[in-house]
Amino acid sequence: MHIFYTPDITQNIYTLNEEESKHCVRVLRLPVGALVNLVDGRGGFYTAEITSDNPKKVSLSILKVETEFHKRNHYLHIAVAPTKNIDRIEWFLEKATELGIDEITPIITDRSERRVVKEDRLNKVITSAVKQSIKAYHPILNESIPFNKFLNSSIEGEKLIAHCIDNQGKKYISELVIPHQKYLVLIGPEGDFTPEEVNLALNKGFKPLTLGDNRLRTETAALSVCFEINYLNR
Amino acid sequence: MHIFYTPDITQNIYTLNEEESKHCVRVLRLPVGALVNLVDGRGGFYTAEITSDNPKKVSLSILKVETEFHKRNHYLHIAVAPTKNIDRIEWFLEKATELGIDEITPIITDRSERRVVKEDRLNKVITSAVKQSIKAYHPILNESIPFNKFLNSSIEGEKLIAHCIDNQGKKYISELVIPHQKYLVLIGPEGDFTPEEVNLALNKGFKPLTLGDNRLRTETAALSVCFEINYLNR
Repeated sequence: MHIFYTPDITQNIYTLNEEESKHCVRVLRLPVGALVNLVDGRGGFYTAEITSDNPKKVSLSILKVETEFHKRNHYLHIAVAPTKNIDRIEWFLEKATELGIDEITPIITDRSERRVVKEDRLNKVITSAVKQSIKAYHPILNESIPFNKFLNSSIEGEKLIAHCIDNQGKKYISELVIPHQKYLVLIGPEGDFTPEEVNLALNKGFKPLTLGDNRLRTETAALSVCFEINYLNR
Repeated sequence: MHIFYTPDITQNIYTLNEEESKHCVRVLRLPVGALVNLVDGRGGFYTAEITSDNPKKVSLSILKVETEFHKRNHYLHIAVAPTKNIDRIEWFLEKATELGIDEITPIITDRSERRVVKEDRLNKVITSAVKQSIKAYHPILNESIPFNKFLNSSIEGEKLIAHCIDNQGKKYISELVIPHQKYLVLIGPEGDFTPEEVNLALNKGFKPLTLGDNRLRTETAALSVCFEINYLNR
């Protein structure tokens, strides 16, 4: 079944934009009468029929609507320092979307080699993964923000920070959180957070976590957190 | 600390090959007297001192040897159908090496779009991840093999298969395995195993597993298995 991402859907009819229409008619070669699925990114999963195959504006008639489609039983927000090689963060976004994530915030830290992020491009990666993995909820990608400013913004939920500084206080996520909550996890850049940044977070109530003995790259650490939180909420 | 992969190390002195020597002297600019670490891929972790900085053959004197360095408490073998886009399997190999894996076998299935694999290139990806994540054990990459032939080879351990065919009998890995064992997990291609292939595996004693409700790409499914088996063996 073919999936289209239609965040602006409001009624029982919908018209695909020119790019999607062309893809629908010229690439997928779907005829009038064919059934497709739509996701609105807010939990809505639609079954629709093609009523016009105009390659510039394909018309769809909604036959069935499901709300809160595969609604998640927890909320995971990961704030991660973008990697120098942007492919690595794009890869993380694709995989996290497949596995399940709700919100991502790129944070700019003292040791961040990359200080600029093209949110539009990263959002395209997420949307593509949303369609590929048939998710009715589209993860939220926030604008990048300096780490200190982020810590001073209104942040909710169980707060955790992953860092590499030796610290007896570190615990596994499974020891730190309870299921079905809202979680916010901080992941540092290549080279880790600075001790000052870690202390700043600890003073804000973040708990230090360990992901085990492996030395993980930034994007691997972020995905490990995503896996572990989802695993604990099965 | 800089790491070199030295699978052929046998004595208390070692000479880096021309490529590594050049990297050591010209790129890392390490002088005589500098300390480096070596891993032999079989659990040996060495501390060595540079005794000659000849950019074609750097000589090292071994100062300290640790054996069974970070030895794993279980053995994970994943047999996975290589993806059409080889980047995806290379990505899996890098991440699985970071997280912990012991053996990988590329399997060629009925629906495999990719039937040829360059093992040399994939091994380079693994070796690079071994050094980056400081692993003394180098995962074994077997030559690719047709699925049926693989099932008829001598395979050991707890045997699991991940497939997408609706099947009441599927269970989570945590319900199927006990810790500290040897595990072999089969992961299918884009488009999944055929029903015949699944039945063939079930008849060989493989247990069907579920990775949850998410629709995962081949490489994401393989990495999820890696995450989960390692998690259950913490």
